[in-house]
Amino acid sequence: MSSTMEPLKARRLYLLLREQILSGEIAAETKLPSEPTLAQDHGVSRVTVRRALDKLASDGMILRRPGAGTFVNAGGKASMPVVADFANVLTHLVEMGRKTGVKLISFGYVAATPQMAEELGLDPGEKLQRSVRVRLIDGQPFSYLVTHVPERIGMSYSEADLASTPLLELLERSGLVAERANQVIGATLAGPEVAAALDLDIGAALLSMTRVVFEPSGRGIEHLQALYRPDRYSFHMDLARTGDDGARRWTPADAVRTAGNDK
Amino acid sequence: MSSTMEPLKARRLYLLLREQILSGEIAAETKLPSEPTLAQDHGVSRVTVRRALDKLASDGMILRRPGAGTFVNAGGKASMPVVADFANVLTHLVEMGRKTGVKLISFGYVAATPQMAEELGLDPGEKLQRSVRVRLIDGQPFSYLVTHVPERIGMSYSEADLASTPLLELLERSGLVAERANQVIGATLAGPEVAAALDLDIGAALLSMTRVVFEPSGRGIEHLQALYRPDRYSFHMDLARTGDDGARRWTPADAVRTAGNDK
Repeated sequence: MSSTMEPLKARRLYLLLREQILSGEIAAETKLPSEPTLAQDHGVSRVTVRRALDKLASDGMILRRPGAGTFVNAGGKASMPVVADFANVLTHLVEMGRKTGVKLISFGYVAATPQMAEELGLDPGEKLQRSVRVRLIDGQPFSYLVTHVPERIGMSYSEADLASTPLLELLERSGLVAERANQVIGATLAGPEVAAALDLDIGAALLSMTRVVFEPSGRGIEHLQALYRPDRYSFHMDLARTGDDGARRWTPADAVRTAGNDK
Repeated sequence: MSSTMEPLKARRLYLLLREQILSGEIAAETKLPSEPTLAQDHGVSRVTVRRALDKLASDGMILRRPGAGTFVNAGGKASMPVVADFANVLTHLVEMGRKTGVKLISFGYVAATPQMAEELGLDPGEKLQRSVRVRLIDGQPFSYLVTHVPERIGMSYSEADLASTPLLELLERSGLVAERANQVIGATLAGPEVAAALDLDIGAALLSMTRVVFEPSGRGIEHLQALYRPDRYSFHMDLARTGDDGARRWTPADAVRTAGNDK
């Protein structure tokens, strides 16, 4: 996948067809109209149609059968390759037997923003160690991790430690106690730096997770912003329906089911 | 927010600055370079710079202080307006006292894809009722819901019922037992139809949730694909660190914390 952005009209047609396929509006196995017909229907050039179809094909959403035409792929996008435990992504992947690696992209000390100072409970003027890492699964970039750690804590390990050992492990080895954390899960777009690091197009969708880790005193010891490629990772939950009539609701069944990838 | 896509160079610059602000590379309260300087630094026109800055300002990521310049907003994007329970989004929002509404966009019967037939355990040739709805919170579009229900089940309620009552409630009222479900959370991009329905730009990031609901016999009764605006909804978990040294991991603390929005 290249990191150049395709022209706007092709991107628009790509997003339209993708949406119609994902939502079931165009059913699996449907034969798409020919390129000239698509060009006419959407008022665009054949080059634009071809660009949009190329992207759909590289996503695995359509299949080109020479001599027969272009078909919506029945397998499609719905099956996600890595289904995991959102609280312990890395641990879970290692338990699944996946080979993981990490690349340290940057490391340094920065001033805290007022918001981060408040979230972490910093002393006035206290600096933060900021690192950027990319996590690989089976050699493929998979997550982009920006961490901020109070300077006094960051002093306990080196840049080289961080390039080889998970941050939380370094913190716990240094005697700190990670007691609790809160995390928020959302979605965002890949900017140029993240896109290049994760081998995605600029403007691709990313699953985001922000986690703040606290020690028993209530002070923050780590602020993590993680961005995940949604085609290489997704979060899976099993739910059970509980409660009485009129107040029935979903409850996580055994919290999180873990499943391998046999695709 | 308009649903037209801004020109590519402006979008690229917007995504670059946004990424640098979100990752802390450009700190909060930082004064941005002037428009001519940004234009020169990035090799683009001033019109392009202005478009990118307009979008950042409308996102609330930068503040223009007349006479003083343009500054990174300290409040920024990190505070999410709606923090909720991913298993019971609608119930949770109602409990928070938010006014919700629904718009039925389309309703009809379609052939099942092989994948959906397998997931739901359909009889050969069994059709599906397909509906598209938009859920509103306080009058603002918030989620885009595509549901597929086996035809024999969908017959138990009308199009008008679906426009006023949550689908699962209709199913349970008709005597069906929803016993368990599985759900997958990911991220995707808004195509033109979803963008128009949710009042977003084409290509905006969306949080996605796919849930399949099963009755005790193991057959599926509902397949839901939900797309959420990440600026109007995000998923929050509290975690506790449990287990012995060397095997410590995060466990959901009381599953999900619910928090209001006082912004």
